[in-house]
Amino acid sequence: MNYPNGKKPSSLSNRTSNKSKTTFSNRGMSLEEDINDTNAYYRTTNQAIIHKKPTPVQIVKVDYPRRSAAVIKEGYFKQASTTDYNGVYRGKYIDFEAKETKNKTSFPLSNIHDHQIKHMESVVNHGGICFILIRFAVYDQTFFLPAMKLLTLWNSQFKGGRKSIPYQKIKEAGSLIPFKFPKRVDYLTIIDELYF
Amino acid sequence: MNYPNGKKPSSLSNRTSNKSKTTFSNRGMSLEEDINDTNAYYRTTNQAIIHKKPTPVQIVKVDYPRRSAAVIKEGYFKQASTTDYNGVYRGKYIDFEAKETKNKTSFPLSNIHDHQIKHMESVVNHGGICFILIRFAVYDQTFFLPAMKLLTLWNSQFKGGRKSIPYQKIKEAGSLIPFKFPKRVDYLTIIDELYF
Repeated sequence: MNYPNGKKPSSLSNRTSNKSKTTFSNRGMSLEEDINDTNAYYRTTNQAIIHKKPTPVQIVKVDYPRRSAAVIKEGYFKQASTTDYNGVYRGKYIDFEAKETKNKTSFPLSNIHDHQIKHMESVVNHGGICFILIRFAVYDQTFFLPAMKLLTLWNSQFKGGRKSIPYQKIKEAGSLIPFKFPKRVDYLTIIDELYF
Repeated sequence: MNYPNGKKPSSLSNRTSNKSKTTFSNRGMSLEEDINDTNAYYRTTNQAIIHKKPTPVQIVKVDYPRRSAAVIKEGYFKQASTTDYNGVYRGKYIDFEAKETKNKTSFPLSNIHDHQIKHMESVVNHGGICFILIRFAVYDQTFFLPAMKLLTLWNSQFKGGRKSIPYQKIKEAGSLIPFKFPKRVDYLTIIDELYF
């Protein structure tokens, strides 16, 4: 949240669309910004405690110009081994990933990594509430897709199935998250519907 | 886990003792290493899914020598706004901080930040299991102290109370975590006792 340009560097590697998102989004806000603001609102109003994890960075070289100030002089972005967001809501463990695509007809499964899928499967097995938020930037629509449904579609690609999830399929299997200010991605309402 | 020197850079800022820990620890392993290995064991044996959060880094300058490789050229360690570890165990949200001290008689409360205390309080209010692991390196003892007990001691410092928690107090209010290989900090056994 405190990055100098007001954007998280994860957008460098994680985002499907990061070059000209204002072209594709009516509101000009990235999914990540919308989620961060929504989570901040949830915390302020004491609804849930959910944070984005810091971007994983591999630090190679650190200088110490002063005793108190370490400066990272060489570092690299690492691939996340888990998902981007987690926390607690109504006593339950919440864990999710968020992805944005410029694609109009489908969501490419290459956006998700194998170890993220394994992590999501484990979370579900341990009784956590796990899901993915998928935004189709061209339609300005964000969908909530439970991890179990994602896992089924993910696994089918290795049995001759598609390498992407059709937009129509996400519309059917997922839940459209309504846009309302100030909770621009109010995914807790979907959790209430599906899990409680 | 993948840092070139095998150590997380958080040790630069978070650890009470980081200069000569081998002098003070019989096993020569830091609390963080012990917890990371224990968490890995928990995951491998499918007992719990608990991870250390990446170290928060403020990235100021990034170079792109090649399209695929971004190199961080200037970055700074940020103070963590939450705790270091979280995840799911038996369907419950788990959230904790870990601190090591070289001190023999007490644990200085200055090791914990105000926003971490607020975070812990919120987690408890939302039904999560929250605690702190405190290691006294000189005794090679690691204690499990529930967040609510820490909060009481924390708040008392503003009512004329101590700025540190005496070792004896931690021994009484907390639970000593037994050392056994390969779970060198087997805190789940304490969670089982206290919360289930």
